[in-house]
Amino acid sequence: MAKTIDLNADLGEGFGVYSYGADAELIPLVSSANIACGRHGGDPSVIRRAAALAAKNGTVIGAHPGYPDLAGFGRRQMVLSPSEITDELLYQIGALDGLCRAEGVRVRYVKPHGALYNAAAKDEKLALAVAEAVRLYDPKLVLLCPEGSAMAASAEKLGLAAAREFFADRAYREDGSLVPRSENGAVITDESEVPARVVKAVSEGRVIASTGREINVRFDSICLHGDNPRAVGLAKAIRAALTTSGVTIRAFCDK
Amino acid sequence: MAKTIDLNADLGEGFGVYSYGADAELIPLVSSANIACGRHGGDPSVIRRAAALAAKNGTVIGAHPGYPDLAGFGRRQMVLSPSEITDELLYQIGALDGLCRAEGVRVRYVKPHGALYNAAAKDEKLALAVAEAVRLYDPKLVLLCPEGSAMAASAEKLGLAAAREFFADRAYREDGSLVPRSENGAVITDESEVPARVVKAVSEGRVIASTGREINVRFDSICLHGDNPRAVGLAKAIRAALTTSGVTIRAFCDK
Amino acid sequence: MAKTIDLNADLGEGFGVYSYGADAELIPLVSSANIACGRHGGDPSVIRRAAALAAKNGTVIGAHPGYPDLAGFGRRQMVLSPSEITDELLYQIGALDGLCRAEGVRVRYVKPHGALYNAAAKDEKLALAVAEAVRLYDPKLVLLCPEGSAMAASAEKLGLAAAREFFADRAYREDGSLVPRSENGAVITDESEVPARVVKAVSEGRVIASTGREINVRFDSICLHGDNPRAVGLAKAIRAALTTSGVTIRAFCDK
Amino acid sequence: MAKTIDLNADLGEGFGVYSYGADAELIPLVSSANIACGRHGGDPSVIRRAAALAAKNGTVIGAHPGYPDLAGFGRRQMVLSPSEITDELLYQIGALDGLCRAEGVRVRYVKPHGALYNAAAKDEKLALAVAEAVRLYDPKLVLLCPEGSAMAASAEKLGLAAAREFFADRAYREDGSLVPRSENGAVITDESEVPARVVKAVSEGRVIASTGREINVRFDSICLHGDNPRAVGLAKAIRAALTTSGVTIRAFCDK
Repeated sequence: MAKTIDLNADLGEGFGVYSYGADAELIPLVSSANIACGRHGGDPSVIRRAAALAAKNGTVIGAHPGYPDLAGFGRRQMVLSPSEITDELLYQIGALDGLCRAEGVRVRYVKPHGALYNAAAKDEKLALAVAEAVRLYDPKLVLLCPEGSAMAASAEKLGLAAAREFFADRAYREDGSLVPRSENGAVITDESEVPARVVKAVSEGRVIASTGREINVRFDSICLHGDNPRAVGLAKAIRAALTTSGVTIRAFCDK
Repeated sequence: MAKTIDLNADLGEGFGVYSYGADAELIPLVSSANIACGRHGGDPSVIRRAAALAAKNGTVIGAHPGYPDLAGFGRRQMVLSPSEITDELLYQIGALDGLCRAEGVRVRYVKPHGALYNAAAKDEKLALAVAEAVRLYDPKLVLLCPEGSAMAASAEKLGLAAAREFFADRAYREDGSLVPRSENGAVITDESEVPARVVKAVSEGRVIASTGREINVRFDSICLHGDNPRAVGLAKAIRAALTTSGVTIRAFCDK
Repeated sequence: MAKTIDLNADLGEGFGVYSYGADAELIPLVSSANIACGRHGGDPSVIRRAAALAAKNGTVIGAHPGYPDLAGFGRRQMVLSPSEITDELLYQIGALDGLCRAEGVRVRYVKPHGALYNAAAKDEKLALAVAEAVRLYDPKLVLLCPEGSAMAASAEKLGLAAAREFFADRAYREDGSLVPRSENGAVITDESEVPARVVKAVSEGRVIASTGREINVRFDSICLHGDNPRAVGLAKAIRAALTTSGVTIRAFCDK
Repeated sequence: MAKTIDLNADLGEGFGVYSYGADAELIPLVSSANIACGRHGGDPSVIRRAAALAAKNGTVIGAHPGYPDLAGFGRRQMVLSPSEITDELLYQIGALDGLCRAEGVRVRYVKPHGALYNAAAKDEKLALAVAEAVRLYDPKLVLLCPEGSAMAASAEKLGLAAAREFFADRAYREDGSLVPRSENGAVITDESEVPARVVKAVSEGRVIASTGREINVRFDSICLHGDNPRAVGLAKAIRAALTTSGVTIRAFCDK
């Protein structure tokens, strides 16, 4: 039986004259596009262009909402109340969906961005606030989040589908959590290792943790990073390695 | 046969700690609520509260998108390209609609705000950009605009329904246009005149222009201003005068 | 020998059409005006009007910089790095000082706002980042902060003068710290008690803590809150009570 | 007698994660740095780094204030009142000057940005509002503007020094005005022509207009554009051509 896996990347994060990432190159390479919603990055015209590219390439669109902090790109932790989080996400998902409608497509899943993703992965109240926004917007949307996170638990609690992601270029601890960026070795800097690592993770459900021991990993999607100069090359290499191994790239949910 | 008319007002325009207008008092008094979309005023939580009040009171919700200029409250003319206008409106309509979904209601019409309203009333390209956003978002939405404006013409051109509004407290010229705010007598400062003026306009389709001559007026909705301390009292007086005259207050479109 | 004390309040916090506080009434009543710098509240024109009022009334002007979060009014904790804090404060102090120059006055002290004030009162790195901004801008500026705080220590470390403030309407613990707002009794709701409490604190250096025991308090300034409807009345009552007790209201630093 | 000329460029226009221009390469090549002030581009940390580079290289710093429109990069015309313009500029000049103080340097001139530059070059009221801000901030600051513009006239009216600039890569009409960007041939696309054109303009005070006729030009500074990939190469070529011709690159005002 043929294996399939989803590839996702953060897209639509430019702002006005400021370009960011490589939307035109990456969107054809991934099966799921996490599109920014204008509050940590993205403006209406940048977002619409990303939605149009996704529509043209058959890429499924997810909302990628973040803290309302353009200067910090949503990467600085902010203490919003759970109800502020829910309202922010409803606003952002709706805004993106409005632009998607103009391109004949719709938002199908939600993946929080940056500091909000990290906070909601651990904090139950924030996770529930995120899941509540998804449920209120449309309970058929999928929540894309880390395996075993508070977000995954909140999705289950509210009856939402969750998809879990594996980070192609990040090191894992033995307990399945990521090595924090503040520690050495958090990011796999030898990119030539990444495709084989991804193939092994998809085919065997196994990854070599930072200690050298192999652990089990469970996921529905592989997160590629789009914001470095080698992102496009790495995405191509991962696609090629997966295809060669007989794995089909396919989104975790329908368009 | 009983006459009906719609009353509309701008709502949900507070921002963070800053309150604005009298949402709680006005929403039960109007049949259509033009709710801000967060770019000239309104933040996600303020907007959601306004949507909840409208849902509770059976008030129809319209999107009230404006130029992205919080410091100027969307009242300063800005030169955005037509495609920027369309994308801004898709973003804003969608954002509001996202918050409405959480309250079990939806956006049913669109009325641009402030400087954008004024510009799109006259400028054909901007008017078309506005109407295009409405059409792309949902061609069943109604565009609320002035009679005889470029927006009304654009709506017709794109096959959208348009509703026209009468300004309760503004003076009209003989040609049916508003006396500009830069001229004396633009606003009817003796508010005791307003209810009778509104009743005459609804019942007879006639208003006394600034020259003293009576002219015909055609409209589907009466615009009340919500941002002055006497707004609530005036709204009550207008409602009472209309009801006494046998006019039923009813939205121009369905919930 | 005659006692003197300073009264300070947060001012210039309106934004565009949004008014906030009671600048025109409060500025003549205080000796030191903490003026917002446009990033948590305040816009250039609001700020300039506050500076003009201060200039006219002989009120000393302090910068009141906050987190760059208008939607949250600087009251939501944000994780900025120490260097981001220093740069934000240099930007904000300079911006206010630019508007002061137009009114023939200058910034003479700095008091951080809201969540930044609370964070820098406890966190040594943030406190040092704040003090460093003050030192780099002008080492003759005074830092207004709580007695015994990390900010007071940082000021001393960098050779800056610090002034300490007493909160007129807040309850104190036996250790001299404020009862947190999350606890009952944090704010003295019976405002009739406040003037006598302030007079006692100024005259005797003593305040009754939340436990009922009297403690010593040391301060150079009394913080009045300007953002509630009774702020002006309370400010007048405190001034009157102090004056009656022979205390002179005078700023803690020169214009 | 040796000729000297100033080279200026717009710098410090990045924002958060978004880079823009080539500050590190260009600042050593110009004698005057127009640094953004955070409202059309630039954030406090980006601005401070640009100020530090200017301080290190002995480059004179000018404020480059623009319309408060990050999404439009200050390139979209906005209708601000003259007093709003003056207050915005005081805010922005002060903010930049605050960050300069941290690097031991100060703002020495002001050059408005983008749509504000274009509007104030023609509109007397805006030009006066700009000059008034400069005068109120510090009447020793120089206003950098086009020859024969409303800004130059306003500077003279208010007793300010004005410096005029020549655009290295723009075509001129016979009347000395720029060919508008909306017309063909507005920008000199064959960059190999630019160095010789600049040398001729500096040495002879003459430039070949778009019609082919030579006209006189008078200026104190040459504006280089920093926001295209070839900007650094072109700046080097212009410097080299000027130096070879015996022209010394020197700022039009003192540090």
